[in-house]
Amino acid sequence: MQKERLTAFSDGVIAIIITIMVLEMKAPHSADLAALVKLWPVFVSYVLSFVYIAIYWNNHHHLLATADHVTGGVLWANMHLLFWMSLIPFATAWMGENQFARLPTALYGVTLLGPAVAYFILQHYILRAHGPHSVLARALGADLKGKASVVAYLCAIPLAFVHQALAAVIYVGVALIWLVPDRRIERTLHDVEHKRGKAP
Amino acid sequence: MQKERLTAFSDGVIAIIITIMVLEMKAPHSADLAALVKLWPVFVSYVLSFVYIAIYWNNHHHLLATADHVTGGVLWANMHLLFWMSLIPFATAWMGENQFARLPTALYGVTLLGPAVAYFILQHYILRAHGPHSVLARALGADLKGKASVVAYLCAIPLAFVHQALAAVIYVGVALIWLVPDRRIERTLHDVEHKRGKAP
Amino acid sequence: MQKERLTAFSDGVIAIIITIMVLEMKAPHSADLAALVKLWPVFVSYVLSFVYIAIYWNNHHHLLATADHVTGGVLWANMHLLFWMSLIPFATAWMGENQFARLPTALYGVTLLGPAVAYFILQHYILRAHGPHSVLARALGADLKGKASVVAYLCAIPLAFVHQALAAVIYVGVALIWLVPDRRIERTLHDVEHKRGKAP
Amino acid sequence: MQKERLTAFSDGVIAIIITIMVLEMKAPHSADLAALVKLWPVFVSYVLSFVYIAIYWNNHHHLLATADHVTGGVLWANMHLLFWMSLIPFATAWMGENQFARLPTALYGVTLLGPAVAYFILQHYILRAHGPHSVLARALGADLKGKASVVAYLCAIPLAFVHQALAAVIYVGVALIWLVPDRRIERTLHDVEHKRGKAP
Repeated sequence: MQKERLTAFSDGVIAIIITIMVLEMKAPHSADLAALVKLWPVFVSYVLSFVYIAIYWNNHHHLLATADHVTGGVLWANMHLLFWMSLIPFATAWMGENQFARLPTALYGVTLLGPAVAYFILQHYILRAHGPHSVLARALGADLKGKASVVAYLCAIPLAFVHQALAAVIYVGVALIWLVPDRRIERTLHDVEHKRGKAP
Repeated sequence: MQKERLTAFSDGVIAIIITIMVLEMKAPHSADLAALVKLWPVFVSYVLSFVYIAIYWNNHHHLLATADHVTGGVLWANMHLLFWMSLIPFATAWMGENQFARLPTALYGVTLLGPAVAYFILQHYILRAHGPHSVLARALGADLKGKASVVAYLCAIPLAFVHQALAAVIYVGVALIWLVPDRRIERTLHDVEHKRGKAP
Repeated sequence: MQKERLTAFSDGVIAIIITIMVLEMKAPHSADLAALVKLWPVFVSYVLSFVYIAIYWNNHHHLLATADHVTGGVLWANMHLLFWMSLIPFATAWMGENQFARLPTALYGVTLLGPAVAYFILQHYILRAHGPHSVLARALGADLKGKASVVAYLCAIPLAFVHQALAAVIYVGVALIWLVPDRRIERTLHDVEHKRGKAP
Repeated sequence: MQKERLTAFSDGVIAIIITIMVLEMKAPHSADLAALVKLWPVFVSYVLSFVYIAIYWNNHHHLLATADHVTGGVLWANMHLLFWMSLIPFATAWMGENQFARLPTALYGVTLLGPAVAYFILQHYILRAHGPHSVLARALGADLKGKASVVAYLCAIPLAFVHQALAAVIYVGVALIWLVPDRRIERTLHDVEHKRGKAP
């Protein structure tokens, strides 16, 4: 029960975050092509953030699917993750409206770094609630992808001040790595169910 | 469980998309009839988009009801559908505020074409997860209505540049065809349950 | 399952409708009392609409609790109700920002009349799906309160052009009548469960 | 069933309240650091309100977890709580945009006092529905933390007119007290389950 309400609330917040970003893409007052074309940085920023938030929802979905129960620590670690994710629409709008200027592009990296660190903390609290020999513990393993993403963001933020394109390439690259769903958890869960099914 | 969270998240996003469109219908500053009447293109666009998104929710509801489980491919195909649907409020606002000008009316067609194609892809992934002899495979059949809609949008988009009314008639016509709920799936599901009920 | 997704989607849409109205209550740019006091018509309109939407959610909740299953007709009648409810934030904002001017106050009545009629249609489709001897049919009875509300709105709309206060009194009065929860359904449901519990 | 729809609706409303606040943090038109730094009062107000709403969700979650059933009184007491919470984004925006001016800071206290009192009323109705010897009654005990918060808000509101920082310190302090989850309920629930598990 507790876990279901946590995932329902998270779904609600993530659904709103992913959708209100489109409100920043304001309909131009004139109906010509130039007005539409001028929106491209806002549109590209929207697509990138949509993909990132979809990735978070997807991973959150897999992570919580492995949890049997939630503790107070898990509840707050989850709120902390949602807080950081709620800043993404702001950074997306600022970056898009200013045509990928340096400071907004760097700040966008900060609002990607925040949820990445918060996700680690959430994983930690879920792991602690389930023990080091749980399905989740085996499924996550060393979590190289998560650690690499944090390193990538930490490189991208200063690089945005050198040249924004360098940071943008890193943001897109990390998203592409994550677009592959977290098969580690899926596979381990599948193995566990398979074994259970075989058990006499 | 997995499927339930997918439908809950989709419900959340679709509920927000259908509701935020009304935010584009800004309350006029003056209280006279002329100010209200001037809003008619925004209102008509809102009604049309409300109907389209309601149709998508309805069909999505029937489609997912037939699915026993969801795969990573289904999750992402669903996100892809939600992405295209999230662009409808933007195109609705642009078309309404510019009194059905040619380019916005054509772009509206593009934002209808996008979800239609994305829906095919989602169907494909759900079918692949369930096999060619599943209830869903029989229920969908040739999906003539879906294919006809895509052809209709592909005609409407260039026609919007000839005369906007031609495109508008097609958009309304396709919506009317879909307002009839997808009885194919309902009937086949009903048959299957009927047979199961009769089984000794 | 079908019914659950319908109520979940309705909950989402109603939750958004009730909450986005507060976005119309824009924070004044100055921090003095006069700026706050000037917002009173917007605030009063918000409170009234919040109460109305809360009443609809409450009654919708009771109505759907009696339904065993939903049909295509019920799905669309529900969408129709949500459409009318989605217009309430617009009329609320227009009435509030224009200090209860005549036309906006009349239009507010129209956006209350719309959902009231749509609710009748939804009841009709749910009743048709359950038969004239169902729990719901007995619980609803003659639905005098629903019919009286429609008559009241039909009176209030023209009266708004005579004097806005007359319409406002009717809107508040109808809300007060409905604030009493629908005990008819609660009582009949309770009776039914009581009898079942007693059955040998 | 009834309780589940109540919590789902509350989750939806709270998720929207917590997320739309970020819409008040409008992306600046210029891309320089000064423009970003100028947003600090808006950001700090957002963080404080995010924490408060997260606390309410958390406590609401625990409170409803103890309830076996909901009555009409509980439904309306819950709506009353959501109404007060829906005013928090307005007060947050007003306080943030006016750099913690006296009147907005005092009003912010009023919009914290409102939900605190509404929460007491909700507790009262849930307790009344479950009886004085229920798990919840034992778990809540004297509810010193809830009473102390109300007293703190009642002090902070007039103090805001003396010096805003005094009120701000109280608002932050109360939030810190509540950040500790409501272990009373968790512990009692745990005890009850423990006893049940031990029962022959």
